[in-house]
Amino acid sequence: MSQNIYDDPDFLAGYRQLDRSRFGLDGAPEWPTIRSMLPPIDGLRVLDLGCGFGWFCRWAAENGAASVMGVDVSTAMLEQAEADTSSPIIEYRLQDLEMLEPGALGQFDLVYSSLALHYVPDLPRLIAFVGDALSSGGHFVFSVEHPIYSAPSNPEFRDDDDGSRFWPLNDYMLEGTRTTNWFADGVVKHHRTVATHVNDLVDAGFVLDRMAEFGPDEELIAADRRWIDERHRPMFLMIAAVRRSAPL
Amino acid sequence: MSQNIYDDPDFLAGYRQLDRSRFGLDGAPEWPTIRSMLPPIDGLRVLDLGCGFGWFCRWAAENGAASVMGVDVSTAMLEQAEADTSSPIIEYRLQDLEMLEPGALGQFDLVYSSLALHYVPDLPRLIAFVGDALSSGGHFVFSVEHPIYSAPSNPEFRDDDDGSRFWPLNDYMLEGTRTTNWFADGVVKHHRTVATHVNDLVDAGFVLDRMAEFGPDEELIAADRRWIDERHRPMFLMIAAVRRSAPL
Repeated sequence: MSQNIYDDPDFLAGYRQLDRSRFGLDGAPEWPTIRSMLPPIDGLRVLDLGCGFGWFCRWAAENGAASVMGVDVSTAMLEQAEADTSSPIIEYRLQDLEMLEPGALGQFDLVYSSLALHYVPDLPRLIAFVGDALSSGGHFVFSVEHPIYSAPSNPEFRDDDDGSRFWPLNDYMLEGTRTTNWFADGVVKHHRTVATHVNDLVDAGFVLDRMAEFGPDEELIAADRRWIDERHRPMFLMIAAVRRSAPL
Repeated sequence: MSQNIYDDPDFLAGYRQLDRSRFGLDGAPEWPTIRSMLPPIDGLRVLDLGCGFGWFCRWAAENGAASVMGVDVSTAMLEQAEADTSSPIIEYRLQDLEMLEPGALGQFDLVYSSLALHYVPDLPRLIAFVGDALSSGGHFVFSVEHPIYSAPSNPEFRDDDDGSRFWPLNDYMLEGTRTTNWFADGVVKHHRTVATHVNDLVDAGFVLDRMAEFGPDEELIAADRRWIDERHRPMFLMIAAVRRSAPL
């Protein structure tokens, strides 16, 4: 079962302070990229796996989705999402992503997930659920922590003697759990290589449409010089895939 | 134009000492992986981009290929390939991969390339050539140096205070040339992210079939303990893609 760290009061208090919690999608530096990987939202039935405070659900409703369902394992986050949402086409459900059974949530045209899947121990099982929930030709667009970011035993930048910085990468090829201290002690994430993400999708009948790795553009660096280190290693991996409608 | 470092006498002398030069495919640790990504060879028209000493060309001929063409920019390597080859179905051609024009080499069912494409400055141009050279449903299977391997300004493992090792990754998101000293000074390679490889293929009408990142398995580590560090970062990126025969 996935760890539900988002209902830990210390974790949640810290998480609430992030720009992406306070300002929503516009507070997430990778949002312009993942937004560019989405199909036109108009008329789509949308499912958000790990919807958190509901920012994406509300954006989808405002951009013409026919219906939006957001699911999350955190009671505290869903309470906040409900309080911030007035649209009648949005429905929130308390749900551990790991426990989803095929058909449990109905049929969708777009399944979206932002930075949630690295908490799920059995990714092929979840991808199979998504494949089943999507209509033929439907879209699966998601972000996870990049495996370069999740791999190391000491995931902190280091300074070299000449003042340059680097990311001490190790154990990239060793898939499995990583335990970090991020707002709370003992946050458990699941490290999988880029190739594993790609092959799990292919094996489940998806065609890859686009891949992105988050790095800051000149505009972001100009706005805040601290983004410059993020060129050294991508923090997020983003993938858009389409459910195959026919054999190749 | 691509640098032709393989005709540099110092480089070639060093390169000839590698296991992959002395023992061929069985001397390349990633061969079992990339071999598993190939379609059945029987009856296929095969093109090898950057064929070097011709090891793969001879393997393809021995495994039932209908015809095999190997192209390389190195006169010295092709002379060796000719000397080592007796099969009448294999043809070698001196060719800079960067200068290939659509239709220049005919039609093929499998285009293979091992560790050559990171020397090519304009990868989309070469992928367009491959798409044009492949019959509908044809296969493109290649390896390149992994972007994690090619990115750093100081691409050498380092030892940590506790005796563990790590790879000092930097500049991953900064695509462009990297100049290293490998058997000769000033070897120029072209660093591109994993996402760029994927998106270039998709944009050229390919469907991704499989991705692999090279890491040593238990057997390899048991045979030679020195392989153990290769778990920290993948040395090679391998991709198998199929030329799309119809819209999704």
